[in-house]
Amino acid sequence: MDPTQSHAKLKASLEQIAALLQRHKVLETWTHNQAGQTEQQRELLESLVHRQNLAELRHKLHRMHPADIGYVLEALPADDRRLVWEQLDAPMAGAALPEVSRNVCEGLVEDTPRERLMGVLAHMDAEDFGHVSAALPREVLDEAFRARDEGERSWLISSTSFPEGSVGRLMIQDFVPVRDTLTVGDAIKEVRARPSLPRQIDSVFVVDARNVLRGLVPMRSLLVHDPARPIVETMAADLVVFGPGEKADQAAEAFGRYDLVCAPVVDDRSKLIGALTVDAVVDYIEARAGIRALQSAGLRGEEDLFSSVWDSARNRWLWLFTNLVTAFVASRVIGFFEATIERVVALATLMPVVASVGGNTGNQTVALVIRSLALGQVTLANARHLVMKELTISVLNGVVWGSLMGLFAYVLYGVAQIGMVMAAAILLNLMAAALVGVAVPLVLHRSGRDPAHGSSVLLTFATDGLGFLIFLGLATAVLR
Amino acid sequence: MDPTQSHAKLKASLEQIAALLQRHKVLETWTHNQAGQTEQQRELLESLVHRQNLAELRHKLHRMHPADIGYVLEALPADDRRLVWEQLDAPMAGAALPEVSRNVCEGLVEDTPRERLMGVLAHMDAEDFGHVSAALPREVLDEAFRARDEGERSWLISSTSFPEGSVGRLMIQDFVPVRDTLTVGDAIKEVRARPSLPRQIDSVFVVDARNVLRGLVPMRSLLVHDPARPIVETMAADLVVFGPGEKADQAAEAFGRYDLVCAPVVDDRSKLIGALTVDAVVDYIEARAGIRALQSAGLRGEEDLFSSVWDSARNRWLWLFTNLVTAFVASRVIGFFEATIERVVALATLMPVVASVGGNTGNQTVALVIRSLALGQVTLANARHLVMKELTISVLNGVVWGSLMGLFAYVLYGVAQIGMVMAAAILLNLMAAALVGVAVPLVLHRSGRDPAHGSSVLLTFATDGLGFLIFLGLATAVLR
Repeated sequence: MDPTQSHAKLKASLEQIAALLQRHKVLETWTHNQAGQTEQQRELLESLVHRQNLAELRHKLHRMHPADIGYVLEALPADDRRLVWEQLDAPMAGAALPEVSRNVCEGLVEDTPRERLMGVLAHMDAEDFGHVSAALPREVLDEAFRARDEGERSWLISSTSFPEGSVGRLMIQDFVPVRDTLTVGDAIKEVRARPSLPRQIDSVFVVDARNVLRGLVPMRSLLVHDPARPIVETMAADLVVFGPGEKADQAAEAFGRYDLVCAPVVDDRSKLIGALTVDAVVDYIEARAGIRALQSAGLRGEEDLFSSVWDSARNRWLWLFTNLVTAFVASRVIGFFEATIERVVALATLMPVVASVGGNTGNQTVALVIRSLALGQVTLANARHLVMKELTISVLNGVVWGSLMGLFAYVLYGVAQIGMVMAAAILLNLMAAALVGVAVPLVLHRSGRDPAHGSSVLLTFATDGLGFLIFLGLATAVLR
Repeated sequence: MDPTQSHAKLKASLEQIAALLQRHKVLETWTHNQAGQTEQQRELLESLVHRQNLAELRHKLHRMHPADIGYVLEALPADDRRLVWEQLDAPMAGAALPEVSRNVCEGLVEDTPRERLMGVLAHMDAEDFGHVSAALPREVLDEAFRARDEGERSWLISSTSFPEGSVGRLMIQDFVPVRDTLTVGDAIKEVRARPSLPRQIDSVFVVDARNVLRGLVPMRSLLVHDPARPIVETMAADLVVFGPGEKADQAAEAFGRYDLVCAPVVDDRSKLIGALTVDAVVDYIEARAGIRALQSAGLRGEEDLFSSVWDSARNRWLWLFTNLVTAFVASRVIGFFEATIERVVALATLMPVVASVGGNTGNQTVALVIRSLALGQVTLANARHLVMKELTISVLNGVVWGSLMGLFAYVLYGVAQIGMVMAAAILLNLMAAALVGVAVPLVLHRSGRDPAHGSSVLLTFATDGLGFLIFLGLATAVLR
């Protein structure tokens, strides 16, 4: 047993597979290019090469965990990805497909013949099927849906009725309900009857005759207590439950805060309808962190390294367009002062410094406020406190660094007024940046939007425009 | 039972507490300002107000989960925070303190009299004590350390010997080792003997006579199997283990990938030394996401909404200074072309557009590469593919949007050369941004740094400087 290094092992697997694929391509080209052979000889050679290499690849893949195969699929360029995908048998493909991102999943589904795709989908449980269903074309989804049994169909209908990013979308149906009239021993029998339970289900859920949740008993308690004892006497004291419409973000927060492994999901009449497990929450948190990082740079979060050029280019257009519009508006502010710049060309040199310093410190404020909003730490009561604090910091920094920059500008151009304008403009733009940096995420949050989305563009727009306006305006007034 | 809304309930608690604190302050001010009273009357009134309010506050706090108290402490301004902290008895304070961030923890420790602090620390288990120990002053740490028993001391010494961000720092000692000679029934007895086990310990770890890990048996298997069966026959097939020196990031990845709840930690001779549980991993992921968001804006990640103005200002200096230096260098590039700007002042108006578009699209590339690096998807083999893709996108976008902007500039100023220079400069700066956007995070990553740290500054520096150079350089050549 290798004690550590699950990560290193995975990296090594990826490299081995990439090497196999590389060799496959080289051999293929070589056999193609062999002159002086009959068509028959060439075909024979090709098929041998093919078979030997692909057998090795299949062998390698067969010993891997489905999640690791998912990782390999994500990490390969499109044609290699397809080749690996084709080597997977239906059960393995069915286990690996829910592990890849939406974007990769769509690509694989597109490339798979209908018959094989149906076979792959048939090997998924209802949750995994629900998970990949968003990536399926309409007719495929309909056909695969009809092929599932009654119970799965009704589960799929009810779980997909909840919005994306809700608890209802993450919950599973594989939990163990136990009637409140039973004993600990009876509950153990219920668990024994379900050998394929996911490992995250660490508790049984106690319900009454009408399926209303009464409490939860950790599996470990079942081990500890006397089998003859009524199950209701062993229920855990604190119980955290979720509603299917609740936001997954809030559920993730609660899992982190109360150290949950699994929790019951109940409808608005407290009837037990599902279970939320920590693995789904961890996947959700990880996916969200990745998507947020991309979104804050203006990408839709669906792009991966190997998305097609065309898709990627379009993914960036909205942002590029927004940026061009705001940059153009800020540039019109400068245009307004062309006469002043014509007289004192040094202003053109210095003005980007004012805009840039405002943008950067403002973004620090934005980052701090967004994080505090995410942690739920910003309330009406402390928003004023926050504004005052950020404003004080900006005055402090503005006085210190503004003076320094003013001095630099004076030394550089030998004109005292230019130095003074520079110092004053930096101070004022830092103050503006602090106010806008607090206000923008708060306003976006209040209006129900994700403040991580767009705060930065709006802020940079404001600090650029205001920076140019303040600096050139002051200069026009002072240097006439 | 309230089915959903753990989040809403918590928010409500916070607001109730804030209201209590507010009332407390108002009453205090009021009693202070009551004229025409004897000193005695005033004191009596004050103490009554105090007592009644604080009793209500204490009552409220007493019914809360320690993690929720931690949340409340985080969300309150410094003086309110202190007041709440003082109302907690030692066991509650000991449970709440490990839940707050490092920064808040340090502040509370500073404000707490030595004797009370010792009492609070005595109520923590070894893991929690280890967790807060970094926030304790040297002498306090020494005294509290000496007060703990032998076993805890040696655990603390060994676990703190691992670097920050390693598995060794996150692991706990509260696991259930079971000898490989025992039966399922014996293992159940071992579990029964440990009533206070954390809920995340969902398995027993099987070891041989020399404490070498042999495998893992989920608690649920203990319920399912015949008690007379040897425990080694029931061990789970796939086993993921970690080394204490392994990076927490990689462990978090493995927990997400393999849906783990708890995993054994073994030393380099495969001896069992600890357990890593999913709650520690979730906390780690959440903390890391928050810190990264702040770091990418140039904050150290220790600042919260209520850090003192002085600490916050200093936290931002390094970044502000870096930004001023790079902005100044970029501005010197402009200074180089002052003669050209003097002749054609329109250039001063248009140049920020070129720089800004390059910076923004370059940051999209940076975000994509950083995320792919974090997912382990970037290899030597596909780095070339990646560069080509980003370059192609930038040419596509540069031709489309550069022409459009060039047309705008032409319409605005009626000079064909200005339009052409604008179009060409945008195209070239987008290409430069794509190359720098791929190169910077890769180089930082290769040199062992976190690419999320600083990629953005370096990129903006390059695209600003290059943007001005390309645009003004072309203009100087064309418009002479």
